[in-house]
Amino acid sequence: MILTVTPNPALDLTWHVDRLVPGATHRVAAGAARAGGKGINVARVLHGERHEVLALATVGGGTGDEFAGELGASGIRHRLLPVAGPTRRSVAIVDETNGEASVLNEHGAGLTPAESATLVATAIGLGRSARTVAICGSLPPGFEPDGLAALVAELGEAGVPVVVDTSGPGLIAAARAGAFALKPNREELAAATRRESPADGALALLELGARLVVVSLGAEGLMVVSRADAAAGIRARLPRVLRGNATGAGDAAVAAIAAALAEEPEPGRGRELDAATPAGAEARARLARRATAWSAAAVLMPLAGSLSPDRGALEAEVVVTTAEVPA
Amino acid sequence: MILTVTPNPALDLTWHVDRLVPGATHRVAAGAARAGGKGINVARVLHGERHEVLALATVGGGTGDEFAGELGASGIRHRLLPVAGPTRRSVAIVDETNGEASVLNEHGAGLTPAESATLVATAIGLGRSARTVAICGSLPPGFEPDGLAALVAELGEAGVPVVVDTSGPGLIAAARAGAFALKPNREELAAATRRESPADGALALLELGARLVVVSLGAEGLMVVSRADAAAGIRARLPRVLRGNATGAGDAAVAAIAAALAEEPEPGRGRELDAATPAGAEARARLARRATAWSAAAVLMPLAGSLSPDRGALEAEVVVTTAEVPA
Repeated sequence: MILTVTPNPALDLTWHVDRLVPGATHRVAAGAARAGGKGINVARVLHGERHEVLALATVGGGTGDEFAGELGASGIRHRLLPVAGPTRRSVAIVDETNGEASVLNEHGAGLTPAESATLVATAIGLGRSARTVAICGSLPPGFEPDGLAALVAELGEAGVPVVVDTSGPGLIAAARAGAFALKPNREELAAATRRESPADGALALLELGARLVVVSLGAEGLMVVSRADAAAGIRARLPRVLRGNATGAGDAAVAAIAAALAEEPEPGRGRELDAATPAGAEARARLARRATAWSAAAVLMPLAGSLSPDRGALEAEVVVTTAEVPA
Repeated sequence: MILTVTPNPALDLTWHVDRLVPGATHRVAAGAARAGGKGINVARVLHGERHEVLALATVGGGTGDEFAGELGASGIRHRLLPVAGPTRRSVAIVDETNGEASVLNEHGAGLTPAESATLVATAIGLGRSARTVAICGSLPPGFEPDGLAALVAELGEAGVPVVVDTSGPGLIAAARAGAFALKPNREELAAATRRESPADGALALLELGARLVVVSLGAEGLMVVSRADAAAGIRARLPRVLRGNATGAGDAAVAAIAAALAEEPEPGRGRELDAATPAGAEARARLARRATAWSAAAVLMPLAGSLSPDRGALEAEVVVTTAEVPA
């Protein structure tokens, strides 16, 4: 089982308009309301790929009721912790003429210290029996980087590899706590590590304590840097640019990392993805290829959390190269 | 008691952004979710002005639960008819830099024939003991103009004056059924009557069967045309342009009409607002002044359904003139 943890979930509302004209009134078809947040999207992708998954999130207020109802109908196994603050909303208005999405992300309402502690304890309890745990998205007010670090460290000690996709101090705290894999995008990595180049930023996170850093680079694909490869990094990209909805691309990459960890032949010690051997390098190249293809397959779909059926063909198209990472 | 009927209510979601940039991602504070739809806004204004009011609307789905929760907390007396389709959403994104609101209005989910019949029967039942009934907003799919006409006619026969604020075939049906007052805006009036000038359009509605037509003209104020005045119309406007949120201005004008009808000394036959006497003309001029001031006071408020405390001062500023209406 793969556990996904979403500390700051959202009710995702999506509307499609012919053309978004600021200041104008638009008559539109009913929008879609879905349970969202990065960890929920990761769980959707994994569920769609027939991985056994359990999604853990908080939920509150009327928006939380809608969130729970939609997640219940999705067929994804989940555990929702009731909290006092209402589940935040995230709004996307998709302009059908140019394909652009205008997005409003509400800040979360925040967790009380007791709610944060319950979330960490529940994630540890459920995560102990998982093959891997993915902790995804922003941290709501009240959920401190220390809480994230404790969660990562406890699971690591229990031999469960953790993937973290967050930004800011949380990203640094997760690296320090020994997260197995981190998945920042270029901007998040630069902001958190204060390194201009993605390779430099990735190395900084490895030095802090992570084993593997996957940097998503948008249309330029992604970069995989691992401790096992020492000074070498893997670059993977699709040789053409896809038009579509980029919102779920990073989540698809996280799902690919979690899937690779869950599929390791020998869970626990001695993971192939972490091995300084030709087999290890091959496993990392395979991951780079799949994560790139899944990200691209997510771009082709209208809503985050699903992959285009073309993902297999896309995987064959991905170009993987090994590049020296400057020390 | 004033009854407001909202056949096509909405959950109104409002967000404020510093600057709305199409295609960009914006971090925003939590939006406001309010029970909305024109009849609900009219009820809010009347409730705020300490009129006894009862708001009748349909409600369905998760959005309907949020709608009911917010309306319950507002203190406005209400009666909600459960229906199968979910309550639609209406989205407003207010750009704080230029004050413009970008609006998305979802079409309603539609009513079944049985739900439409129940709504009409309930409105008649409650409306019989009302001093006036305001029926406001668009008609959802499945609620035919015939249903609106039956409601207007039955209440009229029971001696209860009805104010209708709708557009298209519903506006024509309401005039034919003998609605006491109609409150189209300039565009709605032109579209429904196919008359270019507001005065011509208003006369057409009077000829069909209405007693009084109030045409809202945006920053140009409004026009009151009545059967009692024969070929004379009243124009009212504020001598300066207000910046603000125009969404609730028309609803405030409807509230002013309903309040004027509810305050008539002798409910039933022989209303002052309908009298071809100097007192009648004065009552209509008073209404024009108040409806203009309340509309302006609504523009000054961030959310539809409330009036600025300046409404009294604004009323003193309104300029009222009598103009010949071309026959």
